[in-house]
Amino acid sequence: MIVMKFGGTCVGNGERIASVGRITARVLEQTGSTPVVVVSAMNGVTDSLRRAASTAASGDRRTYRLIRGELEQRHEQAIAHCVTDPERARALGAETHTLLDWFEDLCQSIWTLGELTPRGLDAVLGLGERLSTRLTAAAMIDQGSKAEAVEATEVIVTDGNFGNAGPLMDKTRARARARLLPLLEAGVVPVVTGFIGATADGVSTTLGRGSSDYSATIIGHCLSADEVWIWSDVDGVMTADPRIVPDARTLHTISYAEVAELSYFGASVLHPKTIQPVAQRSIPVRVLNAFHPERPGTLVCGEVSEDVLVKGITAIRDLTIVTVEGRGMQGVPGVAGRVFSAVGRSGVSVLMISQSSSEQSICFVVRSVDTPVVVDAIEREFEREMLRSDIDRIGSQDEVAIIAAVGAGMKGKPGIAARVFGALADQGISVISIAQGSSEYNLSLVVVHDDVDEGVRAIHRQFGLGRIQTQG
Amino acid sequence: MIVMKFGGTCVGNGERIASVGRITARVLEQTGSTPVVVVSAMNGVTDSLRRAASTAASGDRRTYRLIRGELEQRHEQAIAHCVTDPERARALGAETHTLLDWFEDLCQSIWTLGELTPRGLDAVLGLGERLSTRLTAAAMIDQGSKAEAVEATEVIVTDGNFGNAGPLMDKTRARARARLLPLLEAGVVPVVTGFIGATADGVSTTLGRGSSDYSATIIGHCLSADEVWIWSDVDGVMTADPRIVPDARTLHTISYAEVAELSYFGASVLHPKTIQPVAQRSIPVRVLNAFHPERPGTLVCGEVSEDVLVKGITAIRDLTIVTVEGRGMQGVPGVAGRVFSAVGRSGVSVLMISQSSSEQSICFVVRSVDTPVVVDAIEREFEREMLRSDIDRIGSQDEVAIIAAVGAGMKGKPGIAARVFGALADQGISVISIAQGSSEYNLSLVVVHDDVDEGVRAIHRQFGLGRIQTQG
Amino acid sequence: MIVMKFGGTCVGNGERIASVGRITARVLEQTGSTPVVVVSAMNGVTDSLRRAASTAASGDRRTYRLIRGELEQRHEQAIAHCVTDPERARALGAETHTLLDWFEDLCQSIWTLGELTPRGLDAVLGLGERLSTRLTAAAMIDQGSKAEAVEATEVIVTDGNFGNAGPLMDKTRARARARLLPLLEAGVVPVVTGFIGATADGVSTTLGRGSSDYSATIIGHCLSADEVWIWSDVDGVMTADPRIVPDARTLHTISYAEVAELSYFGASVLHPKTIQPVAQRSIPVRVLNAFHPERPGTLVCGEVSEDVLVKGITAIRDLTIVTVEGRGMQGVPGVAGRVFSAVGRSGVSVLMISQSSSEQSICFVVRSVDTPVVVDAIEREFEREMLRSDIDRIGSQDEVAIIAAVGAGMKGKPGIAARVFGALADQGISVISIAQGSSEYNLSLVVVHDDVDEGVRAIHRQFGLGRIQTQG
Amino acid sequence: MIVMKFGGTCVGNGERIASVGRITARVLEQTGSTPVVVVSAMNGVTDSLRRAASTAASGDRRTYRLIRGELEQRHEQAIAHCVTDPERARALGAETHTLLDWFEDLCQSIWTLGELTPRGLDAVLGLGERLSTRLTAAAMIDQGSKAEAVEATEVIVTDGNFGNAGPLMDKTRARARARLLPLLEAGVVPVVTGFIGATADGVSTTLGRGSSDYSATIIGHCLSADEVWIWSDVDGVMTADPRIVPDARTLHTISYAEVAELSYFGASVLHPKTIQPVAQRSIPVRVLNAFHPERPGTLVCGEVSEDVLVKGITAIRDLTIVTVEGRGMQGVPGVAGRVFSAVGRSGVSVLMISQSSSEQSICFVVRSVDTPVVVDAIEREFEREMLRSDIDRIGSQDEVAIIAAVGAGMKGKPGIAARVFGALADQGISVISIAQGSSEYNLSLVVVHDDVDEGVRAIHRQFGLGRIQTQG
Repeated sequence: MIVMKFGGTCVGNGERIASVGRITARVLEQTGSTPVVVVSAMNGVTDSLRRAASTAASGDRRTYRLIRGELEQRHEQAIAHCVTDPERARALGAETHTLLDWFEDLCQSIWTLGELTPRGLDAVLGLGERLSTRLTAAAMIDQGSKAEAVEATEVIVTDGNFGNAGPLMDKTRARARARLLPLLEAGVVPVVTGFIGATADGVSTTLGRGSSDYSATIIGHCLSADEVWIWSDVDGVMTADPRIVPDARTLHTISYAEVAELSYFGASVLHPKTIQPVAQRSIPVRVLNAFHPERPGTLVCGEVSEDVLVKGITAIRDLTIVTVEGRGMQGVPGVAGRVFSAVGRSGVSVLMISQSSSEQSICFVVRSVDTPVVVDAIEREFEREMLRSDIDRIGSQDEVAIIAAVGAGMKGKPGIAARVFGALADQGISVISIAQGSSEYNLSLVVVHDDVDEGVRAIHRQFGLGRIQTQG
Repeated sequence: MIVMKFGGTCVGNGERIASVGRITARVLEQTGSTPVVVVSAMNGVTDSLRRAASTAASGDRRTYRLIRGELEQRHEQAIAHCVTDPERARALGAETHTLLDWFEDLCQSIWTLGELTPRGLDAVLGLGERLSTRLTAAAMIDQGSKAEAVEATEVIVTDGNFGNAGPLMDKTRARARARLLPLLEAGVVPVVTGFIGATADGVSTTLGRGSSDYSATIIGHCLSADEVWIWSDVDGVMTADPRIVPDARTLHTISYAEVAELSYFGASVLHPKTIQPVAQRSIPVRVLNAFHPERPGTLVCGEVSEDVLVKGITAIRDLTIVTVEGRGMQGVPGVAGRVFSAVGRSGVSVLMISQSSSEQSICFVVRSVDTPVVVDAIEREFEREMLRSDIDRIGSQDEVAIIAAVGAGMKGKPGIAARVFGALADQGISVISIAQGSSEYNLSLVVVHDDVDEGVRAIHRQFGLGRIQTQG
Repeated sequence: MIVMKFGGTCVGNGERIASVGRITARVLEQTGSTPVVVVSAMNGVTDSLRRAASTAASGDRRTYRLIRGELEQRHEQAIAHCVTDPERARALGAETHTLLDWFEDLCQSIWTLGELTPRGLDAVLGLGERLSTRLTAAAMIDQGSKAEAVEATEVIVTDGNFGNAGPLMDKTRARARARLLPLLEAGVVPVVTGFIGATADGVSTTLGRGSSDYSATIIGHCLSADEVWIWSDVDGVMTADPRIVPDARTLHTISYAEVAELSYFGASVLHPKTIQPVAQRSIPVRVLNAFHPERPGTLVCGEVSEDVLVKGITAIRDLTIVTVEGRGMQGVPGVAGRVFSAVGRSGVSVLMISQSSSEQSICFVVRSVDTPVVVDAIEREFEREMLRSDIDRIGSQDEVAIIAAVGAGMKGKPGIAARVFGALADQGISVISIAQGSSEYNLSLVVVHDDVDEGVRAIHRQFGLGRIQTQG
Repeated sequence: MIVMKFGGTCVGNGERIASVGRITARVLEQTGSTPVVVVSAMNGVTDSLRRAASTAASGDRRTYRLIRGELEQRHEQAIAHCVTDPERARALGAETHTLLDWFEDLCQSIWTLGELTPRGLDAVLGLGERLSTRLTAAAMIDQGSKAEAVEATEVIVTDGNFGNAGPLMDKTRARARARLLPLLEAGVVPVVTGFIGATADGVSTTLGRGSSDYSATIIGHCLSADEVWIWSDVDGVMTADPRIVPDARTLHTISYAEVAELSYFGASVLHPKTIQPVAQRSIPVRVLNAFHPERPGTLVCGEVSEDVLVKGITAIRDLTIVTVEGRGMQGVPGVAGRVFSAVGRSGVSVLMISQSSSEQSICFVVRSVDTPVVVDAIEREFEREMLRSDIDRIGSQDEVAIIAAVGAGMKGKPGIAARVFGALADQGISVISIAQGSSEYNLSLVVVHDDVDEGVRAIHRQFGLGRIQTQG
């Protein structure tokens, strides 16, 4: 059995929704078993909902009413396109209307109280998926399939960490099996809302931005799916961001670990946490293009025994490299401990650490938005040492980026680093800091903003990751 | 005025001691001002003293008596060679005898109490320099110079950190000027014991192993010397260890910061702390060969505006790379803080840190002798996380080494890293981990033991650091 | 100039409100200067509002509507009684209606979002005072005085700690002077809402339960009032709770410090924080009975040079005494530190600590509701020690109470403790634990619940605190 | 089987040693089983040894030689008195001489090295017991008994905490049984050195000052003795210090817990740690007077079901009460935690804590010698709070004392506190601070020095603890 997730662009309008129905039907036909379908909100809808809620909280009664109108129109158009039966279209229209009334009530209440809580926001944000699943299920029925819209609040039980809720797997497994298996046995496609869940008490939560993928892998895990297919508007996991590297190529296969690294260092693919439920059970994931279902996509699985050294090149921008420096630090064991304890207390994540030369200087990379709080935390920690000049300065260089070359094949292979740095040197790109841990699948390096794009391209080229050129 | 320090091989026998006298006389003649001379113990003597003390503590009464005999014989031979006046030779022989009686009393007491304290060890260890200064001063007088043996316990005031005492600079300055300036004014060469000092209460201390250099730079600082000359048996600071790289070359000049890095990463040159007193006052240091006083040696000073990118290549062996790894670490700010606080509490120094990929894994390098205590400290810190499998394992790989390429010219120059890694790749050497901080003069990388020598040679070659070949 | 605060029972109905007007007029007449009046909500109203908000949050739409009706009726009756001018009564009725509509909107919004935030609750809770001030000002005008209702949101600027906001004194001073001084100069009595304030951004806050007193002392401080008068339905600060001790007596005078202690240990008088603004400026506070304005009340001021040893006896119930015990604790410095750090991290307040006998056992008292969290925090802190049996047990005894005897005169006087314990012994009351610090005005002791009332009475009797009996 | 320990005055001269032999013989006769005898050094000897070692370390060669002479003379006199057989006397004299030669060698070595380590001191201090056991055993043999001097270094295995070593019970049990049981079976009285032990490596240690009692209870525990008898020059455990309370009385029985409290609070009886080995196995301890063996002494055992409320009154002088005070402390959970963590880090023991009134003030009692370090530690901890005036002051009152009334019977009995404070009040004694924990057998209170003696007497009188007066 297959769990399929369709992203926002795949359900972006009536035509696309109809196409989702056809893809699903074909999968059912080919595999002979009924898949579970997880859908995102129509693309752009979640952002509109967020804007509605936040403008309401700041005293604006007009914006959320306008948004309500837009959403109503967009969903009605989609209904008109993909639900041909008039009775069914009318009923769906009424249901859509009721949900949007509720949306308006919520925004009105937020306006009245003048406050947007994480819980209130989660209640509003979930509406996009609640609308799109109903529409998708209706379209499937209209095409002659058996389908039923299912609210994930009935399926995915989460903790109460609103805005970034985590699934409680044992409870979720029980509910998912109870709710979805009977449908599958009856040949009815469950069309489940992505992105959302509910606490054990039934309060709506969301699993974090863009986490419809996560809904799919959680359900895949709970139902022991054969595969999880992630349908979006790209051909699969790519060797680099095609906006930077025009000849970036789709990878045939990639391992769970590699895709997590690529994602961590900025590639807009499966978030590391998304991978966990399927990696635990070794369930393969396919990343497919709903606009070109015939293309092979990328297969994500456990071990990948390819000879490819480097799988992909990613970059994260808007970073700052922070340096703690001082003669007095030498021979003082525990300075690194104090630096990172201070950073830890500030709640900020560290993306990369590099230190050599005893403990005279430690440097690490954080997001630039986090720099003030981190620098402040360290300055408070080392107040006395700075007064005594044991620590000279806490420096920070803004506008830097990390470039990461990712690939399980790099491990233990001589020459990778040489080729990476050679490619950069050929472009005259200066490297500020480097880190490569012993157990990792990536080599990370820090460059200034101006050099990022050229750097990514140079490494991509160096490892021949681009599309193979037909030679005349 | 010049402060000169002569190492253990420079005073290794009567002939060498006579040579020290001649070098000193020539310097006096050339510069027109009386230098201060600091001498080490005859080479091998400090090790013998240490062995005597530790065998005494463990109940052995024979070894220290044998050593006493050897020392007596060696010093008597030296006296015979370089003190021709029979009366002066007799007096010096008596003095030597008395000092060696005292040595035997100390060892006897250590044997009785069955315990060797840091303080007791320092009392024993200082005897080598107390013998060699008397001998050197007598040799100078024998050559017709004016000289006087001076105990550093009268000059260098230290804290009570036995075995690795630190100078109290204000008190030392006052005492050094009071004791040494009158001698210099009278044209008498003060021959000062290296390595040792005394607390304000007069208890003997030592400045740490091989720290006669430190005695010289402390005195240079206190007397505002024009230069400090370090005489030993090598031609100066070299681009690499000549035992590994046969065509390693002597550097003409190097900066304080560079020499500190080279030393930190294993080059047996000036210890970083040795540099501090002279760097503070920008006093140039010359590293010279007492066996070939005509050779130019290496000049160590503040800023060095050479175009040389890489100055030297060093390596430290017998290291372990420790890796803390676990899925559960991700998104847990403060893991790095806890790791390094635990390491800090264990009192162990960290040579290099490298971390990327969120906080899923952190790796760092320590001396292999410290591995058990470090691993134990981290395991205790993460006891709960390991039980919950949030941290999978604390791995460690033994028999690794750090190779460091050092040079102020590397900063901001593209292509250095590429050339370093290219050189290694050409030899098929795999790099386990890399760190380059933002503010540093070195690029550090970890390789397995078997690859160290070849790696050092390859980088040395890559940057053309070897002797220029005459081409036929 | 005098700042007067009238509690909830003083404005409990039309008749009482009229009486507030008369008291105010008389004060104006007697002192010759216009006072500032701070009023609470009608008694019971704040509790009703709280109930409305919380039932709405839990999905109940009926209760808040019923409460709205009750509030409407009660305020209309009061208007009918104390505002005789029909036009003014009609206008006030309309204003009341509008405020109650707003109340219903708020509750409706809370119901919709299903969540009651501290901020939302503060918005609802403040309505009682907003209604009562309008009513009180109207009554004064009806009586021929000049008065104006003033929202404290225009006067008291607080931090955003909803439910227990703290005043920002500098900003408050500026606003209070700007808003209130012109009214006073014009002879207009400002009738200010007690209990509430607003952040600098204008969001409504409350100063903590029962904190209309605090509003009065803040305003007193800001306007440098001559005195602050707290009108309620009791005769002043009493020697004990009259429900327990029938012959408890009103004190003539008491010091700031003493009243803070009495309040801390359970007497329902001025909360310690209430005292701060007036104590800082040595502004005397009078506690008066609005039902018997002729009675003298209690004067609270700085130093009180009475010969009275003990001023009052209070008790707090529903406490638990926690004991951390173990042979292994002895000689382990820092156990107390770890115990109280653990308690501190749990966020729980400790009412009393008592420890002797080395560190073999530490005992302290917390509220019983906090016991589980405290015991859990300590057990986690001492997990290892308990496994090793270094700490035998973390015991807790419920249903205990602290009795505190308060009086600045106790300090340095022999015999007080003897009389306290003697009084208890005469009643056969067993004392579980005792604490008296060196700098304090109170002697605290722990007894079981069953003994509290009798204990308070016995000590009260012992020190002759009761009303002097006329003897026949 | 009985383990008996004889204190320093019991073996103070030949006559006393002979008496020890007679007491032992009588016990053997009466109980029918051979006892183990543990002896201290002759009274005053340990202090002389300590003085010898410390003067040697500071460069004095005369004092230890004088002391050697004194010790030789004193032991020779004792031999002369209690060893009548000339051959045996000669042999013992020679053995004594050899031990004193060793003593002189040790002191000479300490003089040479100029340093007295804890290990060196322990080696010297143990000599007193090594001399006295030989003497005692010889005296017993002289009286016709079978006896053998046993070095505790063969019996008691300790950790390496020189000066205050702790026994390793498992190893000690094995060794004690192996070494002592065969002697007992053969009817030979083992005369064991008190006070000393040895590490597993055989290095001499001492168990802490005056800890011959501890040697006896450790051996009692290891051999599962029926009873342990502590012979000294007092009649048993007394109700108070007879120097303060002339009519103090010997107690018939007292519990382990009570005697630990009395000892903790200054009574010079069994140290709390001494009690542990016997309390664990419920072995009764008798405290007896070797000068009046016919007197009943005091029996220390587990539960004591007497009706006596208060067993004894003790006092510790030279204390300081430290107060941390500040308005800003209120409502700051964790202040107590920070105070005692700071104290803990300073390594200082807290004798008593008392706190009430929220956390506005905490007071605790430490030894006056520890006050500077404690106050400094707290000031550093609260540096910021003091700058912000959140903490007003850290006060300390010197020259105070704790008086403790101890008795298991106090628990749960009304009126004890009243009688204690009443007794003090009758003498006009002012109580500074009080603490009574919930689980303890004592009531502690702080008074000024001038009031201590009178306070102890008053409480002693109050509870009728003195000798019953014969009434005429």
